[in-house]
Amino acid sequence: MTVHFHSPLGATSFSDDKMQKVNLYESAQMFCDVYCLLPGQLQKAHTHDDNDKVYQILEGECDVEIGDETQTLEAGELAVAPAGVIHGIKNKSGSPASVLVIMAPHPNFNG
Amino acid sequence: MTVHFHSPLGATSFSDDKMQKVNLYESAQMFCDVYCLLPGQLQKAHTHDDNDKVYQILEGECDVEIGDETQTLEAGELAVAPAGVIHGIKNKSGSPASVLVIMAPHPNFNG
Repeated sequence: MTVHFHSPLGATSFSDDKMQKVNLYESAQMFCDVYCLLPGQLQKAHTHDDNDKVYQILEGECDVEIGDETQTLEAGELAVAPAGVIHGIKNKSGSPASVLVIMAPHPNFNG
Repeated sequence: MTVHFHSPLGATSFSDDKMQKVNLYESAQMFCDVYCLLPGQLQKAHTHDDNDKVYQILEGECDVEIGDETQTLEAGELAVAPAGVIHGIKNKSGSPASVLVIMAPHPNFNG
């Protein structure tokens, strides 16, 4: 049964090993994850040819790179990487950070 | 030029007339709006056959209906309406509410 209601901050899971991705929802249309970044952890800059991605900071702060611009975003702020635009995220702060990440369409859905 | 970084709570716009929709980003893949609901305002329950919708509460609280379930969500909580599932939102509280809304794919993009 599909769960329709979520508390993303209650779903966080951190690891000293690397950034963690916690999936809340997925379909052919999108995925909705929570990325959990301890200080220093990151998702390397990369590009998706056909998919948009939204990063929304839930707690803490992260440096978000979109195209040729990088901004430090705090809780409540968001960044959009349109299809074909390079993007990445890094927690350069001293505290854990959680980020809601929605990508559309799902790049590799097996439903 | 596409704006990649947004502060949704800084983009809110309320009207006594009805719920307001403020667009932050749109493409064929998705739209990303902020819905602004004064007390008593709502989006009537409806269905999209081919599009998923995420509601994430940014401030205040709203009653979100997905399928046959309604929950009162507070800031940080979210609800997902998969394609084909009826959904709606109402601010039954006494305070303004703002909601990040992402729909994928965009139902009628004219890019």
